[in-house]
Amino acid sequence: MNKFDYHQLDDIIHSRIRLAIIAVLITVDDAEFNFLKEKVNTTDGNLSVHIRKLEEAGYVLVKKEFIDRKPKTVYSLSNKGKKAFEIYVEQLSKLIKK
Amino acid sequence: MNKFDYHQLDDIIHSRIRLAIIAVLITVDDAEFNFLKEKVNTTDGNLSVHIRKLEEAGYVLVKKEFIDRKPKTVYSLSNKGKKAFEIYVEQLSKLIKK
Repeated sequence: MNKFDYHQLDDIIHSRIRLAIIAVLITVDDAEFNFLKEKVNTTDGNLSVHIRKLEEAGYVLVKKEFIDRKPKTVYSLSNKGKKAFEIYVEQLSKLIKK
Repeated sequence: MNKFDYHQLDDIIHSRIRLAIIAVLITVDDAEFNFLKEKVNTTDGNLSVHIRKLEEAGYVLVKKEFIDRKPKTVYSLSNKGKKAFEIYVEQLSKLIKK
């Protein structure tokens, strides 16, 4: 691998906001929408779009449940997402190392 | 700083191709166009666009000179670019650290 070939970086993960979402999710078992929104400092619309993209890639799992009769949606990183993030961090580290 | 706030990452640097260009330039004193093109694995047009963006941000210096009467253009990282890259790497490291 040519360490400077930019195609090597996973484009799904590399977007600033998606990277931030994954970075939050890797630190917790699961997270609610508002928690994620506050952590990455974005809007409802923006967060929805990017969570959907991560879900479509199979990197994020979405679970809907009822707590005290109230609907609650929680997000978590899938095993595929964890693996992709590990590879991403490894390739990024190679790239930015002088 | 909230370590997950994605706005903290320098958008000029974070683009995959511009990150790769800077990662090459940080390893050398200066580089010619074709050298960069080969290293980051892209096309003439794409490389031109992104070098211009880095130049406009003051991160990359462009120097035109004649060697054996042939025009030659070399690119190097400015001090501002080096500093911005250092900050970027620092913030990125904070973000991806569990």
